[in-house]
Amino acid sequence: MTLTGQMLIGQHAITGTREAIRAIDPATDKPLDPAYPGGTDEHVKQACALAWAAFDSYRETPLATRAHFLEAMADEIEALGDELIERAVAETGLPRPRIQGERGRTCQQLRTFARTVRAGEWLDVRVDTALPERQPQPRPDLRQRQIPLGPVAVFGASNFPLAFSVAGGDTASALAAGCPVIVKAHGAHPGTSELVGRAVARAVKKCGLHEGVFSLLFGSGREVGIALVTDSRIKAVGFTGSRSGGSALCKAAQARPEPIPVYAEMSSINPVLLFPAALHSRGETLAQGFVTSLTQGAGQFCTNPGLVIARQSPALARFIKTAADLVQRSPAQTMLTPGIFNAYEAGVGALLEHARAKAAAIGLRGETPNQCQAHLFVTQAQDFLADPALQAEMFGAASLVVQCADDNEIRQVIEHLEGQLTATLHLDDADLDSARTLLPVLERKAGRLLINGWPTGVEVSDAMVHGGPFPATSDSRTTSVGTAAILRFLRPVCYQDFPDTLLPAALKHSNPLQLRRLLDGQREAQDNV
Amino acid sequence: MTLTGQMLIGQHAITGTREAIRAIDPATDKPLDPAYPGGTDEHVKQACALAWAAFDSYRETPLATRAHFLEAMADEIEALGDELIERAVAETGLPRPRIQGERGRTCQQLRTFARTVRAGEWLDVRVDTALPERQPQPRPDLRQRQIPLGPVAVFGASNFPLAFSVAGGDTASALAAGCPVIVKAHGAHPGTSELVGRAVARAVKKCGLHEGVFSLLFGSGREVGIALVTDSRIKAVGFTGSRSGGSALCKAAQARPEPIPVYAEMSSINPVLLFPAALHSRGETLAQGFVTSLTQGAGQFCTNPGLVIARQSPALARFIKTAADLVQRSPAQTMLTPGIFNAYEAGVGALLEHARAKAAAIGLRGETPNQCQAHLFVTQAQDFLADPALQAEMFGAASLVVQCADDNEIRQVIEHLEGQLTATLHLDDADLDSARTLLPVLERKAGRLLINGWPTGVEVSDAMVHGGPFPATSDSRTTSVGTAAILRFLRPVCYQDFPDTLLPAALKHSNPLQLRRLLDGQREAQDNV
Repeated sequence: MTLTGQMLIGQHAITGTREAIRAIDPATDKPLDPAYPGGTDEHVKQACALAWAAFDSYRETPLATRAHFLEAMADEIEALGDELIERAVAETGLPRPRIQGERGRTCQQLRTFARTVRAGEWLDVRVDTALPERQPQPRPDLRQRQIPLGPVAVFGASNFPLAFSVAGGDTASALAAGCPVIVKAHGAHPGTSELVGRAVARAVKKCGLHEGVFSLLFGSGREVGIALVTDSRIKAVGFTGSRSGGSALCKAAQARPEPIPVYAEMSSINPVLLFPAALHSRGETLAQGFVTSLTQGAGQFCTNPGLVIARQSPALARFIKTAADLVQRSPAQTMLTPGIFNAYEAGVGALLEHARAKAAAIGLRGETPNQCQAHLFVTQAQDFLADPALQAEMFGAASLVVQCADDNEIRQVIEHLEGQLTATLHLDDADLDSARTLLPVLERKAGRLLINGWPTGVEVSDAMVHGGPFPATSDSRTTSVGTAAILRFLRPVCYQDFPDTLLPAALKHSNPLQLRRLLDGQREAQDNV
Repeated sequence: MTLTGQMLIGQHAITGTREAIRAIDPATDKPLDPAYPGGTDEHVKQACALAWAAFDSYRETPLATRAHFLEAMADEIEALGDELIERAVAETGLPRPRIQGERGRTCQQLRTFARTVRAGEWLDVRVDTALPERQPQPRPDLRQRQIPLGPVAVFGASNFPLAFSVAGGDTASALAAGCPVIVKAHGAHPGTSELVGRAVARAVKKCGLHEGVFSLLFGSGREVGIALVTDSRIKAVGFTGSRSGGSALCKAAQARPEPIPVYAEMSSINPVLLFPAALHSRGETLAQGFVTSLTQGAGQFCTNPGLVIARQSPALARFIKTAADLVQRSPAQTMLTPGIFNAYEAGVGALLEHARAKAAAIGLRGETPNQCQAHLFVTQAQDFLADPALQAEMFGAASLVVQCADDNEIRQVIEHLEGQLTATLHLDDADLDSARTLLPVLERKAGRLLINGWPTGVEVSDAMVHGGPFPATSDSRTTSVGTAAILRFLRPVCYQDFPDTLLPAALKHSNPLQLRRLLDGQREAQDNV
């Protein structure tokens, strides 16, 4: 397939007329063909009108049809073969095995949501049967199900060109919920986006769905994004990116005549706590694990371990020394875009000049453009507490060790943190009691707590939470990875005294979808359904 | 018990020092003793500090303890006896049986949430067990539960001095979720609020909970409310009231350094659709039911039927005539406050002067202050579509009949509506097909759809939805009545590779709470737990 530089408005390939974006191979700084001219406000309106037109039919597709559509998306993405892998490698500078793995994850994610759709638990069916004899007043028949919010705008992420972009987690969960999706492609990988977008559009067509179920727009700057978020037909937004970008979308969504929810995953430094016994017994191993997690993918993960917290001790000094040695020998790695590279350079540059942070190690210098040198910094708890700038995210392979005088300072440092996606504890049995006292604080700060692991690597499963208090996300009540992500795009509707013929399938008296309903306060057993 | 005019900051009765509020008996316009001096910013900070101090212990109370606390609240409210009834009647002008019924509903609501807490479904426990042999990477052990958001600010509502005020639905669901609550009492019924507040504080003490679990503040104007919503320790807000009040709170909450969710239930005109066959076969009965629902409690319900939509026909003309006769003979009723009465007068006054709306009937004039005369207006679909002012809520016993030329106009009128709490359909068998075509539109507009009933009367049960798209509420993803209201105050946390000893009870391997977990993708059966 030849890349066309065109957007997709439903099944129609359309060439934009605004300023074009063009991918840059970050390994060479060379622009890649073709150019992707940006969509106009009129294109946004067309896509929104189509999505709106598709909504009522798409949201009532049988669960099997919708699940099959998600599986067809996965099949079509796999059918793109090497062309997709090669383009994604060229556009992101990420190694080929990483992109292959990410394609696997993306397709598995779609298939997982297909299973979730079929199981139907997300419909959260609740039935309170009528009590006509009840005094002082009869109870009507009340039935609740979840319905989708409406068309969703999804913003592709720079750091996951497949798993969090055109057919990534936000798109998969919104489509699973029954919401049409309009994707604004990330400017860093338009070719990858076009390939995946066409695969999705083919799946729409093969499954006989309304073409408005999926559209793909391009645009430089924020115009297309803001036009999307402020269109009255868009009812929710999914975003993974910077704190400033996410905050701008939240603001625009709140200023609408009808405000809408924005699920923005924005900023996290993912504190790692090293407890004394663990540091003492296996400080070297911890340092190795830490540097591996820190430098993986040039540190370009939302869950990158950007902060290490521990009590000052000879064991901590040895950990820092080992980690510093490893960082110093870390090869430079190509970052995703020149913009991300420049922001990283600015972030570590500010810390290099910071009076209260000391560079413990700087990784090897690169030979080609946009190469990230790993950085390890060290500071003291009191300095960290005194300067909020020390907890700004540096997106890339940089981390800061905060040395604390005692347990009290450790607690203060944790209480001082902003909201996080993850918090990690490394501990041995002798550390259990101190860890236990800190867990309530960590629960208030983060969406996922890990013991004796590393935060990079986010499983797509039922129990995963990729979320957390602000600014980790704009809405701590949800997750953007895992099957619970579907719940973001739903709202409850209650049907009172409906004749069976007018009830949706999920709520009919005969329970044709065989759901385990909450029936008069009791969860139905499997053999009742 | 003698009313003291004091706030409650935890277990401490404190006299405010800002401008006092004082209840007014709306039936006489006479002020009632005592005065309730307003809290200062310092009082707000004290209450928030206490709530914050209480949070970590309260949120980990065993489910049985928390359920018992909710039941103790109900017991203490009932123990207030007639003093509560008399004071609420005096402060609201509502009839004694209504207040008695509302007390019953309030206590039943607390006991229902106690049952919900014990059942533990809201913890939404999800377990993905470790797959150490999985290729290419092992899966860690992942366990998810819901934890409470943090201290919640609750604003008492004017129209439900018990069921939506100090110990009403927002308070009950937030406490059930494990969130400490600070109530800002509604200025219209401070004595009722003090009585109930002291009952709650007694329950806190009897159950041996941290005193910061509950505080009650008074204040005129918006200072106390805004100070509460902008305090960094408050993590969510519950509000039932006007669109302007709710929007101001949303704005303040979004402008915080850490934005927080606001659950504001604000404005709804609750459209009622009358279908031709039903109108033809039982128009008189429908008119009677309509006027009863419209005038109940002087129309001061969020679910009051403020809009009737039907196709022009002789049967509709008869419906209007019968309803007009009944409205004309409706006795005036005391409204809750002089402010609400004045707003109602302004609302119906504007409609009386509207060129495109015709007054079909005005109810009997009152003899005492603040008496609501029922109003019935009629307009044409094209006029309704042309002027957004015609769908502004008139809080009180006023309704507008929109006459449509054909089914297409009916659809246009419904599509033109803002978000609603309810939508009602009156239909006979011959109307089923037309109703079916409108249901998708109505689902997009309202949180609850009713057939052949009236929207006033909101059951507290599992399947109820008292919510809906903006401006019915600020967050359509939730309900403020019914057991699902607890979900508003929770967020998920994932525990990765935790040793059993550090896991919370809900997630331990032995499942001591006997929850029906989502275990490796399957919902556990009852006999497995």
